Amino acid sequence: MKGFKFYERILGAFHDHPTVSKLVVLSSVSGGGLLAFSDNNQSQNLISDSAQGECKKKKVVVLGTGWAGTSFLKNLKSSSYDVHIVSPRNYFAFTPLLPNVTNGTVEARSIVEPIRSIVRKKNFKVEFKEAECYKIDPVKKKIHCRSRHAKNLGGNDEFTMDYDLLVVAMGACSNTFNTPGVLEYAYFLKEVEDAQKIRRSIIDCYERASLPNISEEEKKRIMHFVVVGGGPTGVEYAADLHDYAVEDLAQLYPSLKDHLRITLIEAGDHILNMFDARITEFATEKFCRDGIDVKTGSIVTKVSEKDISTKDRKTGQTGSVPYGMVLWSTGIATRPVIREFMKQIGQGNRRVLATDEWLRVEGCDDIYALGDCATIIQRSIMEDVVAIFSKADKNNTGVLDLQDFKEVVDHICERYPQVNIYLQKKKLKNFDDLLKGAQGNDKKKIDIEMFKQALSEVDSQMKNLPATAQVAAQQGAYLANCFNRMEQCEKRPEGPLRFRGAGRHRFHPFRYKHLGQFAPLGGEQAAAQLPGDWISIGHSTQWLWYSVYASKLVSWRTRILVISDWFRRFIFGRDSSKI
Amino acid sequence: MKGFKFYERILGAFHDHPTVSKLVVLSSVSGGGLLAFSDNNQSQNLISDSAQGECKKKKVVVLGTGWAGTSFLKNLKSSSYDVHIVSPRNYFAFTPLLPNVTNGTVEARSIVEPIRSIVRKKNFKVEFKEAECYKIDPVKKKIHCRSRHAKNLGGNDEFTMDYDLLVVAMGACSNTFNTPGVLEYAYFLKEVEDAQKIRRSIIDCYERASLPNISEEEKKRIMHFVVVGGGPTGVEYAADLHDYAVEDLAQLYPSLKDHLRITLIEAGDHILNMFDARITEFATEKFCRDGIDVKTGSIVTKVSEKDISTKDRKTGQTGSVPYGMVLWSTGIATRPVIREFMKQIGQGNRRVLATDEWLRVEGCDDIYALGDCATIIQRSIMEDVVAIFSKADKNNTGVLDLQDFKEVVDHICERYPQVNIYLQKKKLKNFDDLLKGAQGNDKKKIDIEMFKQALSEVDSQMKNLPATAQVAAQQGAYLANCFNRMEQCEKRPEGPLRFRGAGRHRFHPFRYKHLGQFAPLGGEQAAAQLPGDWISIGHSTQWLWYSVYASKLVSWRTRILVISDWFRRFIFGRDSSKI
Repeated sequence: MKGFKFYERILGAFHDHPTVSKLVVLSSVSGGGLLAFSDNNQSQNLISDSAQGECKKKKVVVLGTGWAGTSFLKNLKSSSYDVHIVSPRNYFAFTPLLPNVTNGTVEARSIVEPIRSIVRKKNFKVEFKEAECYKIDPVKKKIHCRSRHAKNLGGNDEFTMDYDLLVVAMGACSNTFNTPGVLEYAYFLKEVEDAQKIRRSIIDCYERASLPNISEEEKKRIMHFVVVGGGPTGVEYAADLHDYAVEDLAQLYPSLKDHLRITLIEAGDHILNMFDARITEFATEKFCRDGIDVKTGSIVTKVSEKDISTKDRKTGQTGSVPYGMVLWSTGIATRPVIREFMKQIGQGNRRVLATDEWLRVEGCDDIYALGDCATIIQRSIMEDVVAIFSKADKNNTGVLDLQDFKEVVDHICERYPQVNIYLQKKKLKNFDDLLKGAQGNDKKKIDIEMFKQALSEVDSQMKNLPATAQVAAQQGAYLANCFNRMEQCEKRPEGPLRFRGAGRHRFHPFRYKHLGQFAPLGGEQAAAQLPGDWISIGHSTQWLWYSVYASKLVSWRTRILVISDWFRRFIFGRDSSKI
Repeated sequence: MKGFKFYERILGAFHDHPTVSKLVVLSSVSGGGLLAFSDNNQSQNLISDSAQGECKKKKVVVLGTGWAGTSFLKNLKSSSYDVHIVSPRNYFAFTPLLPNVTNGTVEARSIVEPIRSIVRKKNFKVEFKEAECYKIDPVKKKIHCRSRHAKNLGGNDEFTMDYDLLVVAMGACSNTFNTPGVLEYAYFLKEVEDAQKIRRSIIDCYERASLPNISEEEKKRIMHFVVVGGGPTGVEYAADLHDYAVEDLAQLYPSLKDHLRITLIEAGDHILNMFDARITEFATEKFCRDGIDVKTGSIVTKVSEKDISTKDRKTGQTGSVPYGMVLWSTGIATRPVIREFMKQIGQGNRRVLATDEWLRVEGCDDIYALGDCATIIQRSIMEDVVAIFSKADKNNTGVLDLQDFKEVVDHICERYPQVNIYLQKKKLKNFDDLLKGAQGNDKKKIDIEMFKQALSEVDSQMKNLPATAQVAAQQGAYLANCFNRMEQCEKRPEGPLRFRGAGRHRFHPFRYKHLGQFAPLGGEQAAAQLPGDWISIGHSTQWLWYSVYASKLVSWRTRILVISDWFRRFIFGRDSSKI
């Protein structure tokens, strides 16, 4: 009983001092690697202080708890706002590990962090409402929300909320390209529930194919898993499914080993076409070795109950592929609520919600949009070229010497990031060189026409940011930082000169810093495209993947859970129960 | 990169030798407790050998993968059968930990073990079919099965299977006592999916109550959680829910702390009425201290969308209880397929499927039934009293002396276990004393009337076994053992004498060995009723509970998973994401 006493005391300590730092040492299978951490949640809910001064505080409503919204929330430190979060999901999900959930390598619960746990650590009041915003009213500054609950809890219920500042971070939905049958028959991989559904569906296929009275042909159909879309998600899922099937399921369903077939259908000429050609090549070869069938240049025209209709992009030849499970991962589309909002604010012709470089929705001063639901419309330098020229030409002489530019060149480069990209591409040292080129190297002064000519090609370097977690997270952190220093920067603006107006912008514009992108390829191998076009492929890259993702996880809790899940998988393999 | 090499090598070892024993040492938070285990799966799938001699093998079909079916499968060692398992669930679930799944202390996946993993370790062929048996045909020796799958996989499909020996271990369903509204509105806690649903429902209630525009009264209703049934499941669930709400959810939903109410409704006079009075009392007091409302003597007459109608058993007074979530755990009922089968074999008047002491269904020589779906009909000694007497009276003298009994007394005691219970209760040393009592202590011989009189009260000690996991598991192991030694025991029977026939029974009859029962009461306390009416209550009992359940888990995999889940809970608390 002495042993029990010891445990009880430890247990008691955990219970009596739940807020004290807990020091946990996990000495794990990893060659004895020692991992120590201390989870310090000194900051408690300070709800009581919200009563005073509430009337002065601006009400910030955040829509969404994905990468952008959660990153905003985590980085928001100023207590001068009354923050409300509205999302149909009361948790943040670490989406890059979703493919791992589909095969049970990682538990669904390990990659999610309840928003209220994050909220709890804030030293100011944050309220969370589990509801979906279905309408934004920028005129009345209101959002309309709908909550879905069981009938006995009141069923669907609607309410409105007003805001002073709105942060739209609702993400996007899957793009079906209006292909018939996709919504009915295909699986997606955007939400945690999607991953769980896919998992059950795969096991369903195996169980169904194991039943008696199933013809050989039907078995082949059921055991054919198709992934549509050769982007990172599709490729990673196909690779993970292959590992799961070959390493684990083959042992449990030995009679189906030879019936398994995995096909990856991509409309473009290559899989992973946003990556370097070396990665694409490596991935294609690896898939070929693994027996994953890669069909490029093939467009899916229809998904029926039991087969997929395809069309070759070049020859126009049509085909029919019988399948058991199909995953649709061909990119994202704008959510209906955002499309509706765009119409209201005169962006009806655009494809995506447009913001300026400060993440403010064009035409709405109080609404910010970030993450997959929005795109930054880079300002064209040619549009502002006259204004820039006249700003530089302080004395209205109509001509500028290089000296005149000294004062504005940094502002130009900050306001129009395409300038620096263009300089880099043309291997020019600086802005002066660009102008010198236009001058023909000898003249000392340039006029507006010469200036226009010098900049005429710069705008070709404007780029849209990719719709990735990395971008969304950086935007969330950027915006939170702006909010944190709002007062300070209103008094003392720190952004570039306003070329079309007076004074300076309040903040530096958002600048994306690309940290690289991974493409796990299965068999404990991965590819990575790191900044500066560094390429890394192989087993060590998979370990890099493990360490980067472990370090990027949202909390110590999820970090430990995911790491221990990985170890469980190494030891026990993946589970095949239909749970 | 050296570090990576090391990992790669370990990893490689795991991959290259998946069948070699793996030695894993987990040094865990538990005060450095060292836990070492080696998972030895030397036995591989020996499918190839099934072709030879298949025709000679008897085809054994097992229905169900619960405690009874899985225990049977795990203990079956004889390779002289062609074994087929049919169950709608492709996994075994460690049901005693279900309440822990409802609040996320333990992961759903941690308490399940895929049947195919168990099958894989057998050194003979076992086939699993994921389907539900909906009809047993004992005349044609066939079962009719139905598989439920997504429409594109073929939807619902039916097939039949024949058998030589059938093992029915399909368990039972929840007993609603035909109370209106229970199926529509109440939750059950029998399956893993049930636990997940309950979990989501609780979080739903909290989220719904956090929305704006919810009246104070409605909040109170939503935050009222009701458990109907004061048995071990209901009590444990109420206790676990209380801990979850108070220790974890109260921190995340501080504004709802005062709205929470948990009520336990029990029709009888006490909760835990199968336990010792001391346990009942302790539990009632603890619940009272915790603020869990215990309503005994109250019958639920109807469950509506938002309230529960009750009736006091004594006063007849009716009442209405508004609720947010209601769990129904009032015991079990016979499944429709079993009821149908009972009608066919002339057991239509019985409540449960009846078997003899060898677990053979009465009236069906080739069908065995075990676990919750069946009950052993204890043979009444008075029914056989004449046969017993004449078996003992070898020389047909019409009277017996004590010497005559010497040869049959052990057989009597084995065949009619109520004899021993009766002797124990009456504090008699042995059977002789029982007869002596009837003789009036002086006569040396007894006739049939005296014999009848001596045994007349013995049958009052016949008892039905409780419908617990323990009984089911022991029955499964017993039956597997019989199957293992079938040939041997047919040649050399080892059971008691057949009093109504010639020779001996093939096997010893099934005898249940009660190892005790736990009732976890929350707050790291538990009660246990151990064999010999030992009572243990308190924190140390909870630790006993942890160790017993950890040791009883079905595999090393689940064992490690559950233990690590417990540690995760100690460190990080329970999770509140609606996953």
